[in-house]
Amino acid sequence: MAIPFPCFPFSETLTIDKPSIPSSPSLLTQDDLKQIAAYKAVEFVESGMVLGLGTGSTATHAVSRIGELLQQGKLENIVGIPTSKKTHEQALALGIPLSDLDHHPIIDLAIDGADEVDPDLNLVKGRGGSLLREKMVESACRRLVVVVDESKLVDGLGGSGLAMPVEVVPFCWAHTARRLESLFGGGGGAGRCVAKLRRAEGGGEPFVTDNANYIVDLYFAGPIGDVEAASDAMLRIAGVVEHGMFLDMATTVIAAGACGVTVKNKGEVETGLFNERSRS
Amino acid sequence: MAIPFPCFPFSETLTIDKPSIPSSPSLLTQDDLKQIAAYKAVEFVESGMVLGLGTGSTATHAVSRIGELLQQGKLENIVGIPTSKKTHEQALALGIPLSDLDHHPIIDLAIDGADEVDPDLNLVKGRGGSLLREKMVESACRRLVVVVDESKLVDGLGGSGLAMPVEVVPFCWAHTARRLESLFGGGGGAGRCVAKLRRAEGGGEPFVTDNANYIVDLYFAGPIGDVEAASDAMLRIAGVVEHGMFLDMATTVIAAGACGVTVKNKGEVETGLFNERSRS
Repeated sequence: MAIPFPCFPFSETLTIDKPSIPSSPSLLTQDDLKQIAAYKAVEFVESGMVLGLGTGSTATHAVSRIGELLQQGKLENIVGIPTSKKTHEQALALGIPLSDLDHHPIIDLAIDGADEVDPDLNLVKGRGGSLLREKMVESACRRLVVVVDESKLVDGLGGSGLAMPVEVVPFCWAHTARRLESLFGGGGGAGRCVAKLRRAEGGGEPFVTDNANYIVDLYFAGPIGDVEAASDAMLRIAGVVEHGMFLDMATTVIAAGACGVTVKNKGEVETGLFNERSRS
Repeated sequence: MAIPFPCFPFSETLTIDKPSIPSSPSLLTQDDLKQIAAYKAVEFVESGMVLGLGTGSTATHAVSRIGELLQQGKLENIVGIPTSKKTHEQALALGIPLSDLDHHPIIDLAIDGADEVDPDLNLVKGRGGSLLREKMVESACRRLVVVVDESKLVDGLGGSGLAMPVEVVPFCWAHTARRLESLFGGGGGAGRCVAKLRRAEGGGEPFVTDNANYIVDLYFAGPIGDVEAASDAMLRIAGVVEHGMFLDMATTVIAAGACGVTVKNKGEVETGLFNERSRS
């Protein structure tokens, strides 16, 4: 898979103290990489900020780190806006003060993971099932810092072959799934898109989102192409609540891989921003 | 209010036997007009059809009439697809066989009311709170016959000054309402749009839809203008599930007024269709 970002060796960009970096990068697990990227993202956080707190295996490292820095007194006056019930619970347990969009409609910075990142910093998110709340919170952010391991970088959204989640109302979900499938010329193994209802662990009952909806996962044979048109077409289907494409929202992507940490900022004016900021 | 449709006297178009028409049209109540239009629409129904059954004070007359014709043996082998729990109950009580979109993804004909109808047959619907299920069912229809009294005819959607409903997820609904309001340059009495949460009867708790969502009602100072652009902009707001504009969906509008029944079909090829079909 192509890595469209410049790749810096760890020594040039990494100033964090945790986790300890093994001498050979090849020993890093995927979870180590997620943690490295997440801790790096937390360096953007400043005292007094309203923070969007993401959901998923990468974002959970960032939330833990924010809690740690609060306990150490290195951060103060943080207000967290969680993007899921799960993150709400994690942040509560860590003592992070929490609020919501109704009380804080403008968020300074959000940190979250992603399932796919394209060269324009468009994302696929929500394989963890929290796409709607994540999108609501992250639409209200001045900056969205996305943290991933480098396996998430793709040439075009839909290109990973993994699920693109769509949140749908439970009422006649199978009908909505068929309409989504036909939108992309699907309808079977030979089609460009196959739609599957996501099931809860154990495989029986449908997976239910925080908003009491279902998730239909779309599997594409290759990149979708015109993501803006695909987004509008999906949203126009009655029964579709939200989809997992986050277009033109991320301002910074931090990707950790075997060769180090790669960073990309949205737009040229922001290039280099990353290297100017670090907490020593 | 302008009536953009040609107006035919009752004698030219009306072949129904119920309700009995008073000798002076001026004595007709708004509910009489709704019933006249609804009964006229049921003349499009043929035995063997899969029928979308609408919701609201006008559609309920059509559902009653279909039940009556089934009981009289004038219609057979009808399958009804209700657009709300309320219509489901009404149709069950009338003995109309029911199914859903998952089993009947293509519907021959739907009959429903509307809150506004513009000259291009675009609609505002859902003041009764069932916009999402109505839109799901009516998106699957070959023909959508809309029945209204003539007070619903407007020059442009949003122009009635009455509510344009938007179904939103309960999570941070106030934030979503603010985003909707600002989309149309609102935010107060002087703005073009004011957003209000719909309350249940009694005024306390939020009104809850069949899909367990809330309704935010938008009140515009005048017609919206570019309805397609407004539709996409609303759907792009995370937290918006569906809105009450039904664009390019109605194939026939039947409007009853003091001067008689007016009919408009979508596109010229269908003009005159109405007069070719009646059940004697």
